[in-house]
Amino acid sequence: MHAYRTHTCGELRADDVGKTVRLSGWVHRVRDHGGLLFIDLRDHYGITQIVADPDSPVFAAAEKLKPEWVVRIDGDVVARTDETINPNLPTGQVEVRIKGLEVLSESAELPLPVFGEPDYPEETRLKYRFLDLRRETLHNNIMKRQAIIGSLRDRMRGAGFFEFQTPILTASSPEGARDYLVPSRVHPGKFYALPQAPQQFKQLIMMAGFDRYFQIAPCFRDEDARADRSPGEFYQLDIEMSFVTQDDVFDTVEPILRGLFEEFGGGKPVTQKFPRIPYAEAMRKYGTDKPDLRNPIEMEDVTEHFRGSGFKVFAGMIDMDVNTRIWAIPGKGGGSRAVCDRLNAWAQGEGLPGMAYIFFRDGEGAGPVAKNIGPERTAAIRKQLGLEDGDAVFFVAGLPKEFADFAARARVKVGAELKLSATDRFDFCWIVDFPMFEWNEDEKKIDFSHNPFSMPQGALEALDTMEPEDILAYQYDVVCNGVELSSGAIRNHKPEIMEKAFAIAGYPKEVLEERFGGMLRALQYGAPPHGGIAPGIDRMVMLLCGEENLRQVVMFPMNQQAEDLLMGAPSEVSPQQLQELNIRLALPKPKSKG
Amino acid sequence: MHAYRTHTCGELRADDVGKTVRLSGWVHRVRDHGGLLFIDLRDHYGITQIVADPDSPVFAAAEKLKPEWVVRIDGDVVARTDETINPNLPTGQVEVRIKGLEVLSESAELPLPVFGEPDYPEETRLKYRFLDLRRETLHNNIMKRQAIIGSLRDRMRGAGFFEFQTPILTASSPEGARDYLVPSRVHPGKFYALPQAPQQFKQLIMMAGFDRYFQIAPCFRDEDARADRSPGEFYQLDIEMSFVTQDDVFDTVEPILRGLFEEFGGGKPVTQKFPRIPYAEAMRKYGTDKPDLRNPIEMEDVTEHFRGSGFKVFAGMIDMDVNTRIWAIPGKGGGSRAVCDRLNAWAQGEGLPGMAYIFFRDGEGAGPVAKNIGPERTAAIRKQLGLEDGDAVFFVAGLPKEFADFAARARVKVGAELKLSATDRFDFCWIVDFPMFEWNEDEKKIDFSHNPFSMPQGALEALDTMEPEDILAYQYDVVCNGVELSSGAIRNHKPEIMEKAFAIAGYPKEVLEERFGGMLRALQYGAPPHGGIAPGIDRMVMLLCGEENLRQVVMFPMNQQAEDLLMGAPSEVSPQQLQELNIRLALPKPKSKG
Repeated sequence: MHAYRTHTCGELRADDVGKTVRLSGWVHRVRDHGGLLFIDLRDHYGITQIVADPDSPVFAAAEKLKPEWVVRIDGDVVARTDETINPNLPTGQVEVRIKGLEVLSESAELPLPVFGEPDYPEETRLKYRFLDLRRETLHNNIMKRQAIIGSLRDRMRGAGFFEFQTPILTASSPEGARDYLVPSRVHPGKFYALPQAPQQFKQLIMMAGFDRYFQIAPCFRDEDARADRSPGEFYQLDIEMSFVTQDDVFDTVEPILRGLFEEFGGGKPVTQKFPRIPYAEAMRKYGTDKPDLRNPIEMEDVTEHFRGSGFKVFAGMIDMDVNTRIWAIPGKGGGSRAVCDRLNAWAQGEGLPGMAYIFFRDGEGAGPVAKNIGPERTAAIRKQLGLEDGDAVFFVAGLPKEFADFAARARVKVGAELKLSATDRFDFCWIVDFPMFEWNEDEKKIDFSHNPFSMPQGALEALDTMEPEDILAYQYDVVCNGVELSSGAIRNHKPEIMEKAFAIAGYPKEVLEERFGGMLRALQYGAPPHGGIAPGIDRMVMLLCGEENLRQVVMFPMNQQAEDLLMGAPSEVSPQQLQELNIRLALPKPKSKG
Repeated sequence: MHAYRTHTCGELRADDVGKTVRLSGWVHRVRDHGGLLFIDLRDHYGITQIVADPDSPVFAAAEKLKPEWVVRIDGDVVARTDETINPNLPTGQVEVRIKGLEVLSESAELPLPVFGEPDYPEETRLKYRFLDLRRETLHNNIMKRQAIIGSLRDRMRGAGFFEFQTPILTASSPEGARDYLVPSRVHPGKFYALPQAPQQFKQLIMMAGFDRYFQIAPCFRDEDARADRSPGEFYQLDIEMSFVTQDDVFDTVEPILRGLFEEFGGGKPVTQKFPRIPYAEAMRKYGTDKPDLRNPIEMEDVTEHFRGSGFKVFAGMIDMDVNTRIWAIPGKGGGSRAVCDRLNAWAQGEGLPGMAYIFFRDGEGAGPVAKNIGPERTAAIRKQLGLEDGDAVFFVAGLPKEFADFAARARVKVGAELKLSATDRFDFCWIVDFPMFEWNEDEKKIDFSHNPFSMPQGALEALDTMEPEDILAYQYDVVCNGVELSSGAIRNHKPEIMEKAFAIAGYPKEVLEERFGGMLRALQYGAPPHGGIAPGIDRMVMLLCGEENLRQVVMFPMNQQAEDLLMGAPSEVSPQQLQELNIRLALPKPKSKG
């Protein structure tokens, strides 16, 4: 017989009755029922009920067992009586009468119980992560994560992609975040950077002729923590393809994401054909380039209805600035003063003076705005938005780039408040036609909007002839339920376009050479047209596990202060180590007291 | 029609004759045959011959094409005449008559030709890696590497393992090499370490109850470069299993390695049942714990035949030191003075006074040793080793721990010189029963031989009762063709054994707590028996590609000086970056001149 087990704890069925078996696992819980001892024995695969009666030679030893001890038991599989069958447990038709017992390892008093998953402070959960990970929810999330990643690999390979590993000790990459640096021992004063993304490498792989690349790629950004981003490292499904247009990327990636979400989404419907929404349209309809399309509300421009109207606040703004816009947020079913007042109060809580509204009842608009602009304009607004009695409309006014963020949140709030938003779907879309450049107000200069390596629509001619802010790029995002899963782009594959684009953004050729010399050099020796995308693994797993905190889907996460409480990282190092690396500490001066 | 291609360059067959097609790829080479222009167009998938005749509307444009330009061509598929069919090319039955041509991107003059793969300096190859990677050999190696890794993943998943990612920004791990350090911005004066291996994490995953783990795991060691190890990073197939004995690990890993080598080994025979050789036996027979079993030579101890013999050098050494041993290296077919002299000369080239030998002819031993020890002892040696006329035997003498390394090399040399070693096989073995501890002569103390987390054979009782140097561990290596693919072990899963083992190696409990607190804590809350192994990916790929240099099987390797010549890493960073990380440079003083 095997030293530890003939079966796992999830394996025994009615068919096995009569067998003598050996199981190993953790004592999940022990119950004493009138002299009989019931031990739930747990391993990765399931739970099996072990029974010890007082006649058992190991009864006395079994009585000493405590939760989370690891034991090996020998016993006979017996059928449970009809009334004790547990239909919720795959092994629930049987139990094992214990004949032999060996304690493989004991447990000290538990700082964090496994059974029942009572809520515990995060610090305890992270310090004793090995216990936290035994708990059912987290254990299942981590297993789902690995199944998702496995499925992504299968899907990518099935679509003709090859997985290549790219360097982790490398040079700085232009993703706009802070690099983690690694001092070089061999080259005093020089540093490696951990990749913020394998962006340049995946493009180089295309230039090296490998045609289709993917990687479950670790990425590193020294940013402060957020719920949906770990401090330190995260993973993305990094993808790049040669000889493709934007449509090819969409046609390749869409079925992979759709299939993944259908496989792991618990039966929730998934968008069959992802709509493609131009960036400008997304901003106008949703106030954001990450719209949650489960919310059916589309905002509309109603500026003209307010021009010269009796609602002097809006009319005055329109007269003052030609760029003023009034956007309407239609609220189906929100047609009561109570609802409108509640949303107005919410807006005040957000720091605004309030949110203007009209609600419709008895065939006419009600509320101060309707009164001020009069029935004709009110009816025109109602007609434009297709509203009826019992509905409402809310207004935001000003310069779109200033109010868009609030408008987006107001749309979400109205959708949630009026229960217009679905919750049991995965709604995907592509956001396309991002601007190539944008005005950087802080530095008073034109800058890249997103990835500097993207191909401008219209190529070199556009760069030569158009206003920079009017140039669009073959740059796109994929969004699910309001979560941006990834940006992507068709890349620029011509060195002259790269030089021109960087010149427009104010980078002289020397800087380009210095920062992206490898890439620029590669473009000069026959680069194929190529493009790609890199959906975030952690975000997809969070969506599919229904979790809002990244630490629920990562096996060994750091805490918000970028510390690994289990392993004790970061930690101090020896003076010898620093000397070998040719660095010294330069600690901030302690603040003086008193 | 697609913007870039209807087919790949490896796709067209006789069936496609008559089709109008679009292909994109690199100009591999251009030949001018009496007015007709032949262009070999290459992409990842293959090469297609494009033909332009002077009547073609794009002939003039085609004449301008140069190697490695990227072009899109339109044309008609035509059958080649019988005499021009190229049976070595999958597309060799057809060619494409060009009708349209677009240059997608040009190439500057090539610093490194792709076609023909002429030899070039490594610095050029690394700086222009994207060109080097287009070359057939390297391109194929990298594709084989990804296929090998894909196969390993499938095999591991098929064997019931789950792949989990472990942290890369973490704490120091006890693998005995130098850590790469990453300064923490948030915690001044503290550092993360990149993992030398995910050793502790994989054990924690077992303690978290996940039962079977694997990972294609990046590992980082700040060591000086070797041909078979990259400076910086390398990959291992990291494996760990719970509730297993050493036999279970072998039974799991053996079919995976055997299957992999059968799949990718080009039909070479692979050991069906890996022999298990105790460490002490391997040292005695082969002089090394990494024996190349393609070499059939097994050394034997022949000390007794020389004790008190007329060969005074050996007899004297035996008298002087009780630990002296004489080992014999039998050399089948080496029975000539010429061969023996050549090997003797080789030994002198290795810095030894020479290598004693006997060769057998005409029914008796010849050479100075045979003359000195006389016919009876000579015959006894011959009998022990099973040698015949036409064979030879070579001797090494002294203290085994001092001469083992030379003996191992002499065995290899004799095997190669006499062509006894097979070259067309993959010969695997397990080396088992490594000692748990060894004497550290430098520090005059007992130290761990290998992994401090291994389980000693005999567990706590052995630690309590045996001489440390006599204790064996459940520690093993897997070796293929003389290359150590991996160490592995059954781990110690009990905190009291960990404390005792570390105490024997001279680490007080405080040090254990400080360096491995997370692990020690985890062992205290119910750790299952577990064990694993971690075969090196790069080494397996090298064996399977028949390459001796790691840079032939890694896509973007660093050079011997740990520099990435393509991306320019490591590099200087800004004073602001250093300040944010609370470090300063402490550069070595420049040597004064003159």
